Amino acid sequence: MCQLLGMNCNVPTDIVFSFTGFAMRGGHTDTHHDGWGIAFFEGAGVRHFVDHQAAIASPVAELIKQYPIKSRNVIAHIRKATQGQVALENCHPFVRELWGRYWVFAHNGDLKQFAPALDGAFRPVGTTDSERAFCFILQELRRRFGDSAPPLDALRAALGELAHAIAAHGTFNMMLSDGAALYVHCSTNLHYVVRQYPFVTARLSDQDVSVDFSQVTTPDDRVAIIVTEPLTANETWTRFAPGELKVFVDGMPA
Amino acid sequence: MCQLLGMNCNVPTDIVFSFTGFAMRGGHTDTHHDGWGIAFFEGAGVRHFVDHQAAIASPVAELIKQYPIKSRNVIAHIRKATQGQVALENCHPFVRELWGRYWVFAHNGDLKQFAPALDGAFRPVGTTDSERAFCFILQELRRRFGDSAPPLDALRAALGELAHAIAAHGTFNMMLSDGAALYVHCSTNLHYVVRQYPFVTARLSDQDVSVDFSQVTTPDDRVAIIVTEPLTANETWTRFAPGELKVFVDGMPA
Repeated sequence: MCQLLGMNCNVPTDIVFSFTGFAMRGGHTDTHHDGWGIAFFEGAGVRHFVDHQAAIASPVAELIKQYPIKSRNVIAHIRKATQGQVALENCHPFVRELWGRYWVFAHNGDLKQFAPALDGAFRPVGTTDSERAFCFILQELRRRFGDSAPPLDALRAALGELAHAIAAHGTFNMMLSDGAALYVHCSTNLHYVVRQYPFVTARLSDQDVSVDFSQVTTPDDRVAIIVTEPLTANETWTRFAPGELKVFVDGMPA
Repeated sequence: MCQLLGMNCNVPTDIVFSFTGFAMRGGHTDTHHDGWGIAFFEGAGVRHFVDHQAAIASPVAELIKQYPIKSRNVIAHIRKATQGQVALENCHPFVRELWGRYWVFAHNGDLKQFAPALDGAFRPVGTTDSERAFCFILQELRRRFGDSAPPLDALRAALGELAHAIAAHGTFNMMLSDGAALYVHCSTNLHYVVRQYPFVTARLSDQDVSVDFSQVTTPDDRVAIIVTEPLTANETWTRFAPGELKVFVDGMPA
C-alpha cells in the first residue's frame, strides 16, 4: 500500500512542514520506498515532481523540503508497489488535461479485476491500476459533461458515483484536484485537520520538528491537510468514514 | 523569442554539461528570463520541471545542474515572453498523453493569427500560441492515425506537413518527442552536433566549463545535441535549413 498527502488552502501556502514528516515515511519511519511524487498547482499551471527512488534518498525530495513552493492545492504520494513495477511512469501523482485545466490524481489501494473500457481519449502510460482508474474517471467526466466543466456540485456527485463504482473492485483511497478544489475519497484510511486562527504549534510525529503556525500565518489563512495517517501528535485529526467523498475548497470541507 | 535545447541519445545520458551553458542564457549571458523548463524521458515516464523564475535564479535549475538525471530524450526551453503572460502554465515544455505515451513539446517563435479549430481532445491550459500549436498537432495526429501510433516514417511525414502549415503563421522552431524519437522543425535558427567516438573535450561558450567526454563515455555512446545557438566554441555545429524537419533516433539524424 501507499500513503497519500493532500493540502487545500484559501491562500497559497507552502507544504514544507507536512512534507518533511510525510517524506520520512518513504523508507525511514515506514517502508514506502518504491518511489514518490508531488504536484503543486500554481495558478493554472502544475509543478510535478516524481522519482522512483525512495523519498528519503531523493535529491528532488530534498529540494521540496528546502524550497517553499506556495500552492493552494497539493497532492503527494509515497509508493509501496502492489501493481506495476518500480518505474517512473508508475509513480503518482498522475497529471492529465481535461476542459483546458490540469487534473492531478493519486491513489492508495489495490483494485482487482478492474479493466474498464477506455475509448482512447485518456490512456494509461504505465501499468498501475491507479492510472487506469484516473483515465477512466476523466473519460467518464467528459462523457457526462461534454466539452465544458460543470458546477462543483455536479462534479462532486459524479465523482461520488465513479469512486463508488471503482471501490467495488478493492481499496480506493484517492485524491484528485483540478486546481480549484481537492476531491478526496476514502475506502479505508484517511484523516484530515483544518488549521486556522488561532494557530498553534504543531509537532511532527515522524521527526523532531515543530512549527508555530501563528508566526507564519495571517488570521485569515486556512489550510486543510489530508493524509493517510495523522502527521502530528498534538492536533485533532478527523477520520474519514469508509465510502466517504469530501470536497475541500478554500481550506475546508465544502 | 526563446531558446531551445534538445538531446537525443542511444543510451541514457545526463545533460548537466549542456544545460549548464544553456541555463546561463536564462538571464545571464542572454535575456531569456521569463521562465524556463526541462523534461526528461525515463523509460515511458517523464520528469517535468518548469519554473517562472529566470533559470539563473531558480533553485530547480540548480538541482538539474547538480543531479545527473539520465535520459535518452530531453527537451529544455528558456523563455522570453512574446505571447502569454509570465506564469507557470505558459512555461515550456508542455506535456500531454497520446496513444498511451507522453509527448513533450517546446517552441521558439511567434505565430500570428493562429487559431486552429480545437475539438476538445487537447485543449491549452495557458495562453501561448505554442501550447495551441502543440494541442493542434496532437489532435491532427490522432485524427489521421486513430487510436494507435503509426510507424516513424508516417509520423515524420505528418509532422512535416503540420509544421509547414503552422509555420505559415510565423516562426516555428520546435522540438517534440514521444520518448522514442526527437522531432525538430526549424524556421529560422537551430543547430546540432553529434558527439560520438572518438570523443573530445568540449568547452562551453557561456561559462568557463570544459568536459572531456572521452572520460565519461563508452565508445558505443552517441549523443545528438540540438540548440538554438551553439553551446560550444570548439565543436562543429550543423545549422538547420529553414523549413527543415529532422528526426533524431539513437543519437543521430534518422
